[in-house]
Amino acid sequence: MATYQPVANPAALIAATAAAIRPADREAAARADRLQDRLTKPPGALGRMESLATRIAGITAQERPHLDRRLVVVAAGDHGVTAQGVSAFPAEVTAQMVANFLAGGAAINVLAHHAGARVRVVDAGVRGETPDHPDLLRLRLGPGTDNISRGPAMTHALAERAIAEGIALFDRERATEGVDIVGLGEMGIGNSTSAAAIIAAVTGLPPRTVTGRGTGVDDAHYELKVAAIESALHVNNPDRADGIALLATLGGFEIGVLAGAYLAAAAARVPAVIDGVISGAAALVAGAIAPEAAESFLASHLSVEPGHMATLEYLRLEPVLDLNMRLGEGSGAALAISLCVAACRLLDEMATFDEAGVSDSDTAVEPES
Amino acid sequence: MATYQPVANPAALIAATAAAIRPADREAAARADRLQDRLTKPPGALGRMESLATRIAGITAQERPHLDRRLVVVAAGDHGVTAQGVSAFPAEVTAQMVANFLAGGAAINVLAHHAGARVRVVDAGVRGETPDHPDLLRLRLGPGTDNISRGPAMTHALAERAIAEGIALFDRERATEGVDIVGLGEMGIGNSTSAAAIIAAVTGLPPRTVTGRGTGVDDAHYELKVAAIESALHVNNPDRADGIALLATLGGFEIGVLAGAYLAAAAARVPAVIDGVISGAAALVAGAIAPEAAESFLASHLSVEPGHMATLEYLRLEPVLDLNMRLGEGSGAALAISLCVAACRLLDEMATFDEAGVSDSDTAVEPES
Repeated sequence: MATYQPVANPAALIAATAAAIRPADREAAARADRLQDRLTKPPGALGRMESLATRIAGITAQERPHLDRRLVVVAAGDHGVTAQGVSAFPAEVTAQMVANFLAGGAAINVLAHHAGARVRVVDAGVRGETPDHPDLLRLRLGPGTDNISRGPAMTHALAERAIAEGIALFDRERATEGVDIVGLGEMGIGNSTSAAAIIAAVTGLPPRTVTGRGTGVDDAHYELKVAAIESALHVNNPDRADGIALLATLGGFEIGVLAGAYLAAAAARVPAVIDGVISGAAALVAGAIAPEAAESFLASHLSVEPGHMATLEYLRLEPVLDLNMRLGEGSGAALAISLCVAACRLLDEMATFDEAGVSDSDTAVEPES
Repeated sequence: MATYQPVANPAALIAATAAAIRPADREAAARADRLQDRLTKPPGALGRMESLATRIAGITAQERPHLDRRLVVVAAGDHGVTAQGVSAFPAEVTAQMVANFLAGGAAINVLAHHAGARVRVVDAGVRGETPDHPDLLRLRLGPGTDNISRGPAMTHALAERAIAEGIALFDRERATEGVDIVGLGEMGIGNSTSAAAIIAAVTGLPPRTVTGRGTGVDDAHYELKVAAIESALHVNNPDRADGIALLATLGGFEIGVLAGAYLAAAAARVPAVIDGVISGAAALVAGAIAPEAAESFLASHLSVEPGHMATLEYLRLEPVLDLNMRLGEGSGAALAISLCVAACRLLDEMATFDEAGVSDSDTAVEPES
């Protein structure tokens, strides 16, 4: 990535990408639905696997979608709000975990490999040093964000830059190795505070309702976290209809990169799998910029973070997994990608009643007298 | 399978297998648990994936279980109770679906392939003709069971034979290709009636409470189904503590074969994944024969069949998936096998905090004044 050139005109790229987003293809989804009913199983017997495949057919505009080229993006960034004592882990862990991602030792490495997905790591704005590595995109938009409980996370220009770089990353991956489905993950000590602030701002729910314990803070630090979010909303007073302002005020360089990737995926008709609460906050930012982008989102799992359920309800998405996970990194998205692949394979590979010579229903034996 | 020899002494094989079953290895499970807490993630952040891996460590008596050799058994059988009009599909579909399994066109073929599992199909007692095929074990213990609403499903000797053949099948698979995890699936028009009768007998719940619509019967046929089950319990008056009698009275040749496979898997310390409501009824039969066998069961998904939840509660198992599925065949088990593999890979392949040079929690920044 040594020769990487920054996006020349971030605002123009965001606008062009948002303008390219179209709603889901209802006709392709309906064709997939009709095909489901001809497959050798009672109608609807595969439950969520059927509705998942139908949704993906609508997103991709293909009756039989193939999800062969799978990508997980893990964007990392640090957060000035950690000065408020909102996390159970020190901020240095963000850079350490980036190194762990690159060495292949993190949960997302194992789960992406299990799902047949490649991993791309982004240093969106990590405070500590990150290495030069072929799988790492080093944007380093800042040494972490500023403390959102005292003012904006970043400038408006940096917010645009983060989103535009996420778009450019996705577009580059698609142009080179191809992307049929993407999972959006993250790492950043303090970023569940930033995510909860975004979720409260967008949904209008009270901060306490959407704030969880992140990596595991105790009661006293939980109160500090809620107070930091309340303060962030008070001092920044963000406009929830303005996605770039949401990001600039409540922050997260990594959240901005993911928001851009969501937009680019939507413009390319590629299903974008939401991971946990921070990935969901990034989806809200993308949805604020281009509401129709949400039609290409898939909810992976129900995180134990309370803000995640609020996000999925706001986006009217139902998760396919509920495993009491709260790790982030794209871990839940990777597991869900595997289910999406299975759902699309069922649609494409199962025999129809006609092909298999199997009798349909409604010809059953009537009871003897 | 042309040279296949029936089990010589079914009762002796069942007794020897039951006697070989040991409880889960609590020490191996505890070692796995301690390892989980050293991996680069907040403690417990992988939720059910962690508890799943720990349970598998206990079943297999291995701190880092490897699930490389995966098997799905699909046992098929017909049911005389279809004469009562309990199913939306005609009985001929059982034999047609066996042909579909062998041709690779059914959902279980797609999902087993997705999970990296091989499929073995058993004609336990199909009414129609099934082909000679290298992947099909043709036991053909009868041309379907007798009508359980009027008397026992099969003789005591045939019940023993079905269970023993399930044991022998598993043991043969283990001796030849190896089995690290097994999913137990089935096919049989009318077998959700048989399963509901077994579940009602074992749990003591009223037939209506545990009876669902199977492949999709309408209201009138649902009432016939409930009446058939009530009658089956009344005329057979089964002893719920006697697994062989349960099977002989309430039936299912395929349920017997699966019950045997559960016992053999437990004796071999191999995790046995319950699929839906019929697979669960077979697990209840196995548990009635050898209660400690249940320690090696894993619940895959929550079927929409009401008897399935009752079964899992009785066995104190929590499913890992809830996808509104109701197909059987082992489809839910195959999806869960993939999650089990992912859970064990996380345990085995993730770096520890020490290995990755990542700081542990409880060293976070305290708030500024």
